[in-house]
Amino acid sequence: MDKITIVGGGLVGSLLSIYLAKRNYKVDVYERRPDMRKEEISAGRSINLALSDRGWHGLEGAGIADEIRKIAIPMKGRMMHDLEGKLTFQPYGNPGQAIFSVSRGELNMKMVNLAEAFENVTYHFNERCVGVNLETATSVFENQNTGERKEVKADRIIGTDGAFSAVRLQLQMTDRFNYSQDYLKHGYKELNIPPADSGGWRIEKNALHIWPRGNFMLIALPNEDGSFTCTLFFPFEGEQSFETLRNENDVLSFFNEVFPDAVPLMPTLTEDYFSNPTSSLAIIRCFPWSWKDKVLLMGDASHAIVPFYGQGMNSGFEDVSVFEDMMNTYGDDWERLFKAFEASRKPNADAIADLALQNFIEMRDRVADPQFLLQKKIEAKLSEIYPDKWLPLYSQVTFSDIPYAEALAHGKLQEAIMKEVMTWPNIENNWQDNVILTRIIKMIDEPLV
Amino acid sequence: MDKITIVGGGLVGSLLSIYLAKRNYKVDVYERRPDMRKEEISAGRSINLALSDRGWHGLEGAGIADEIRKIAIPMKGRMMHDLEGKLTFQPYGNPGQAIFSVSRGELNMKMVNLAEAFENVTYHFNERCVGVNLETATSVFENQNTGERKEVKADRIIGTDGAFSAVRLQLQMTDRFNYSQDYLKHGYKELNIPPADSGGWRIEKNALHIWPRGNFMLIALPNEDGSFTCTLFFPFEGEQSFETLRNENDVLSFFNEVFPDAVPLMPTLTEDYFSNPTSSLAIIRCFPWSWKDKVLLMGDASHAIVPFYGQGMNSGFEDVSVFEDMMNTYGDDWERLFKAFEASRKPNADAIADLALQNFIEMRDRVADPQFLLQKKIEAKLSEIYPDKWLPLYSQVTFSDIPYAEALAHGKLQEAIMKEVMTWPNIENNWQDNVILTRIIKMIDEPLV
Repeated sequence: MDKITIVGGGLVGSLLSIYLAKRNYKVDVYERRPDMRKEEISAGRSINLALSDRGWHGLEGAGIADEIRKIAIPMKGRMMHDLEGKLTFQPYGNPGQAIFSVSRGELNMKMVNLAEAFENVTYHFNERCVGVNLETATSVFENQNTGERKEVKADRIIGTDGAFSAVRLQLQMTDRFNYSQDYLKHGYKELNIPPADSGGWRIEKNALHIWPRGNFMLIALPNEDGSFTCTLFFPFEGEQSFETLRNENDVLSFFNEVFPDAVPLMPTLTEDYFSNPTSSLAIIRCFPWSWKDKVLLMGDASHAIVPFYGQGMNSGFEDVSVFEDMMNTYGDDWERLFKAFEASRKPNADAIADLALQNFIEMRDRVADPQFLLQKKIEAKLSEIYPDKWLPLYSQVTFSDIPYAEALAHGKLQEAIMKEVMTWPNIENNWQDNVILTRIIKMIDEPLV
Repeated sequence: MDKITIVGGGLVGSLLSIYLAKRNYKVDVYERRPDMRKEEISAGRSINLALSDRGWHGLEGAGIADEIRKIAIPMKGRMMHDLEGKLTFQPYGNPGQAIFSVSRGELNMKMVNLAEAFENVTYHFNERCVGVNLETATSVFENQNTGERKEVKADRIIGTDGAFSAVRLQLQMTDRFNYSQDYLKHGYKELNIPPADSGGWRIEKNALHIWPRGNFMLIALPNEDGSFTCTLFFPFEGEQSFETLRNENDVLSFFNEVFPDAVPLMPTLTEDYFSNPTSSLAIIRCFPWSWKDKVLLMGDASHAIVPFYGQGMNSGFEDVSVFEDMMNTYGDDWERLFKAFEASRKPNADAIADLALQNFIEMRDRVADPQFLLQKKIEAKLSEIYPDKWLPLYSQVTFSDIPYAEALAHGKLQEAIMKEVMTWPNIENNWQDNVILTRIIKMIDEPLV
């Protein structure tokens, strides 16, 4: 049976190893970092994960969804905090729907355990990939403790080694490889809300909290221990920016001004602010994702996106599900399989990259606008009455398996329609009228000029 | 005086070394290739150069324009060859204006000679840059003959090492460095028209010859020895493509079909076709171009473009002219100088990248359209009568020092106006009427809705 090297034992690599193990391949997973089940990994740049339908689908196919559900906290909507601390709740979907907050570390450890339970899967930790021979599917790893290098020959290599993929770096050296890395003017910093003194959560547990402030925002996702992981998304430079908050006073007075209700929740605010790193956000695109029948990229290695739609991991897991389906179609014709996979996934990867960027503006700015919230209410109503005709974009991305590229196209059409609807006189009062709703739904079928 | 390492002794590096030498800096130029004055460099992927005003301006500032003029052949316009071999001539500008065909190798050798004449400039050939320490302005070079490595410490490093810049690779490893490489679906192959048996040129010497064929084209630029360097720009894949021309028969029958008047001029067509490489075409964009006061990129290393506007070298030489002017302004404040330089040049680099791509479509397709040629005649007439109001885009790019970004913006406005003008009834007969010309020129001042 074919021997497959997986470079990168993160979430996507681990899920993939399970799928390949079930097909009896001999799988070796090489991971640069230490085994986090044995060593504490430095925190401060995790961005909590939000598992949604595409992610669950991947986990279910591997038979590990139930195990993961035990550590996932449902978030049923966005809880917006305004400047006075007033709260507004916007559900993500129908009453039964939610996205799920999970700790990246917990999830990764569980998945490694589940993968290692297969006798044909072996993890190798502390092994950094320092080179790949594309023609022979040979990788070179440098042990991070001993400095020793070793060559690993396989039948093929799958690179799931993230945004700064070493496998991709080798593809970048080949002719006609398209590549781009685009950094945002915003960075992020992790902060913390600890559990209540009496235990439990200091703010609503089953929500994703947002403090939308136009050009920047703070968010908070619940953890199992009662704490919240908070992330400040903030410009690197400019009047209000990481650059201008230089000392504890700057930070405290800024937070008191713009996030007044959050400050009392964050007793270690200034310590966290100065001890946690300020990290950057990049969008990475490339093509092709494969080399003959030897090498393939998946997940962030081929399409790293910004975190604002909560789809980074979910799109990576969907890569694995799609790959699994295609293995049924193409069997052992790996070159055709790789080509078909990249051709099918590339437009969807590009679409979710665009959607994620677009959602940053929605989260940090538009959700603070009552007109926008009304628009979303109207869309939810449309969806309730005409479920076959109108599925809000957020639901298409989060609660469906509609290909991202199609969701993006539908979303544009819906947005154009709603832009007009919001100009209709008295819409804020009569939007629930059947006449109005019917008039809107008709616009879906009549091409806009 | 500061010690400056220039990585890359090509055209831009050599010109820069002359400017820096005149300011008494100690300049060391490291070049990966052998000294071409001593060794034959493999041909077959040169793309002849077309020197135009921005390039001349750079050479004049260094005092070497007269020397270069001796090896430059004026091309006064495009000579289009249609499928029957019928010729159409389109002047590039006014009767006195031309672009100049020069051999890259000849030009480079002359410039190295001129640079080496300065006692404070030293060239080091066969030295490949394999690493750069940004903080200390130290470069590591590997000698291509001995394999020996050496470290070179300087006060600053300027990377003029082309599209695949090793200096840029180091910047790419830094946080928040934006980078993209985009390959065209077309590649190119060099071919040859030898001198006439009796000496001299087999086709019009003072023109750039084009065989425009829609999705592909052949061009020919004159050399001093009576020959022409031809370049076929052709898709890599598809019905008519490099992929489908597999043997001598394929090539001959294809050329006889689409370039019938060229075939008798090219006695070594099939040999050249199969011995010369098929090369790819990439657009490279990045930002920032500098690291503190230590490292700066110039020329193709920071902005590699496609060759269709003949502006690759010219824009690189303009980098050097602009840098020279800014050295007067910023003196020894290198960090501010580098920042001001990249801020000023980046929008222009992006603009010429777009213009060059746009000109590919013009050259291979639009120049074969009589309507397009009429449009260009009208624009030339407008320019003749209203020189302050209408300078054709080609002239702005080629025969002026208007910043590329402004030229691009003007060009878009002109194109919008001409698109309307070309729909006017009977325009093909009455375009020389004063009423018509006045009506057009008025549109420049009245904003289009």
